[in-house]
Amino acid sequence: MAAVNTTGNKALIPFSSRLREGRALAEDVWSIFNAANLPADCLNLGQGYMNFPPPSWVRQAAEEALARTDTNHYSHPKGRLRLRNAIRDFYGPSFNREVDPDTEILVTSGANEGQYSVFTAFLEQGDEVILFEPFFDQYLPSVTFNGGVPVYVPLHPPKTDAHKSTSGDWTIDLDELRRAITSRTKMIIVNTPHNPVGKVFTRAELEGIAALAQEFNLLVMSDEVYDILTFEDKEHVRIATLPGMWDRTVTVQSAGKAFAATGWRVGWLIGPESIIRPTLAATTRIVFCSNSPLQEAVAQGLEQVKEKQFFETQRAEYEERRDILISAFEKLGVKYTVPDGSYFALMDVSTIDIPDDYAFPQSVLGRGRDFRACWFIALEVGVSTIPVSEFYCEEHASIGESYARFAFCKDVDTLKRAGERLQALKKYVKA
Amino acid sequence: MAAVNTTGNKALIPFSSRLREGRALAEDVWSIFNAANLPADCLNLGQGYMNFPPPSWVRQAAEEALARTDTNHYSHPKGRLRLRNAIRDFYGPSFNREVDPDTEILVTSGANEGQYSVFTAFLEQGDEVILFEPFFDQYLPSVTFNGGVPVYVPLHPPKTDAHKSTSGDWTIDLDELRRAITSRTKMIIVNTPHNPVGKVFTRAELEGIAALAQEFNLLVMSDEVYDILTFEDKEHVRIATLPGMWDRTVTVQSAGKAFAATGWRVGWLIGPESIIRPTLAATTRIVFCSNSPLQEAVAQGLEQVKEKQFFETQRAEYEERRDILISAFEKLGVKYTVPDGSYFALMDVSTIDIPDDYAFPQSVLGRGRDFRACWFIALEVGVSTIPVSEFYCEEHASIGESYARFAFCKDVDTLKRAGERLQALKKYVKA
Repeated sequence: MAAVNTTGNKALIPFSSRLREGRALAEDVWSIFNAANLPADCLNLGQGYMNFPPPSWVRQAAEEALARTDTNHYSHPKGRLRLRNAIRDFYGPSFNREVDPDTEILVTSGANEGQYSVFTAFLEQGDEVILFEPFFDQYLPSVTFNGGVPVYVPLHPPKTDAHKSTSGDWTIDLDELRRAITSRTKMIIVNTPHNPVGKVFTRAELEGIAALAQEFNLLVMSDEVYDILTFEDKEHVRIATLPGMWDRTVTVQSAGKAFAATGWRVGWLIGPESIIRPTLAATTRIVFCSNSPLQEAVAQGLEQVKEKQFFETQRAEYEERRDILISAFEKLGVKYTVPDGSYFALMDVSTIDIPDDYAFPQSVLGRGRDFRACWFIALEVGVSTIPVSEFYCEEHASIGESYARFAFCKDVDTLKRAGERLQALKKYVKA
Repeated sequence: MAAVNTTGNKALIPFSSRLREGRALAEDVWSIFNAANLPADCLNLGQGYMNFPPPSWVRQAAEEALARTDTNHYSHPKGRLRLRNAIRDFYGPSFNREVDPDTEILVTSGANEGQYSVFTAFLEQGDEVILFEPFFDQYLPSVTFNGGVPVYVPLHPPKTDAHKSTSGDWTIDLDELRRAITSRTKMIIVNTPHNPVGKVFTRAELEGIAALAQEFNLLVMSDEVYDILTFEDKEHVRIATLPGMWDRTVTVQSAGKAFAATGWRVGWLIGPESIIRPTLAATTRIVFCSNSPLQEAVAQGLEQVKEKQFFETQRAEYEERRDILISAFEKLGVKYTVPDGSYFALMDVSTIDIPDDYAFPQSVLGRGRDFRACWFIALEVGVSTIPVSEFYCEEHASIGESYARFAFCKDVDTLKRAGERLQALKKYVKA
């Protein structure tokens, strides 16, 4: 993700006050750690997109769609029927029900736009939305743009001195969650597998969240865009499948993540008609519909994914990629978190001794220690990453200052070279 | 555009009150006149998409993009640099300036999402937005979703008894526009060439609007998505090029309209940095970025369009299509408006004598006479069109009741057959 700079002040027409909230105009982490600002030969483990293309048999379907007429023109705002049917066939069983493609599936212009449309459809001015920290940074302005007020509940970092922890050692405190709920709370956002921690929420944790959602009549938006990436047969539980939860849960998925096609902008929502219908009304006005040729391609992807065992193969490939990175952390002698899912891993940068007199740019100096650590790592050894305090509210940013997020949605060769480069940090690692 | 039905009421979680405004949940004209509700062999002159594909040399570039890696992944939220450069090179001269692709061009997920983002970026709760009626129906909920209040100023229909009028005979009253401006007015939406009238606003009309925009410090959103379709060398004037207007105008354009690719969802905005920057902040949160492969294709389209004389050829083809339709209106003996631009033509349906006892569905009975007329024409002769009262606010809907909108973005054969079918209405036309 990239640059949104501070707005100039020579405007004749003032922009909306909604842009003053949710860091909407701040220089964000994606622009500070943009490739353009870093050494040319830097290996980019910062941004979460692949350095390989989508599978050829999926791209093939896009070419076929380009050759026809109807598949180059407007889709139904709900999404192309072929794609909605393919989603029903492939994902329906994981929801333990017959999902109705006419009323319970909504294709959106990426998962991001789907989430935005849910906020537009459901938030009143002043409604509170609970986010677990660290959180995917887009949630914050998407909530505030729609009049919502974010309320933060931290994931607690591992309470261990061991070098190696797992994403499961990041825990939620259900009492803390309960205390965050007020009469204005409308929604809880769950993200599993979690970006940036890689945590796959356990059934017990989700049951605890579900009980509170039912007790206080809350909507749950479950961002499961990394659900095809869980490792070592870790169980991915959909909160929508817990008793009583279907009617209050909307699940978010992403073709970009599933098929290594982050630039196709095809995602979808699955949920009850009572959530999908208002969200359809929102997305219809926001984008009218999503692009047609790539919807066709994703439909073919889902139609053939089982037969080709693509997700199984992809999962194994990502597990290999993860392990290359993790073993580099281990060798370096820093603390780190092994992710159970997603394509992110956290390295603890608090033991890296950053020289006080290092030449940092102004954009980094004003931020947490992790910003300086990530800058130092990028400049010194040529591996770019993302500082994790960006994924916390200001009040809790200090928790994030210990971590750098590494994206391992990169080919094996790139990850091996990055792992080797990281060893040059050894002399800076405090015992 | 298609169905958004009334939301069921079994929801556990109430949807946002913003959906209760701007007809967001009403059954809209696109779902009532959806192909699924009409005879199977109906010729679709209702919805504004082509029954032919984009040019092969443009689709070719999409295939090339699919074969690479970076062009399948995230684009910069501003849009791909190649496309922004192509927009600058092709359209810059028509703005009489060097347009800066870094700060003055913003690629959006269709023109629709671009317009939505402008509303998000600029509207405060209660800000008034002036729309000329009839208006592109998406404006209304897009304004109200962002807290805006629509204010309507009618285009006045031709004051002539002649069968044939031109879109230029639809006029605005600048005093009426002035009277519509209040202390809360933030924005005027101009649409030229105009959907559904086909009017190409004259320089004098635009100068009048511009003078008021400057007097009252208003933002102008100029929707020019049909700017490549003006006929008989009618001059298309960009309001952004009038003295003093660049700094307060954002111009909207669409690759879907320019390259017969309505399902690609690529559009863009051109304007001063003071408008583009806040709008970038909005679109970055709404969709993050637009799809990459089709941006590449559109870039190639604009890079080669001059050499291939594609727009000139396309304009001549549309002029031929328009004339086929118009000559069918003339032969039928009804009143009609010859459009100077766009791919829409209005037929006056007020002289068509609809049998009182015709079997109309409920969805049509509750609406203006034009809804019944369009239904009757579709069922009786097999040509579907769109009733124009949908493009008016309730208070002024009666002006629209006289008209049906025909889309002529269809191949010559379809238009000829539609023209022949229309002659079967002759016995219903009142003298």
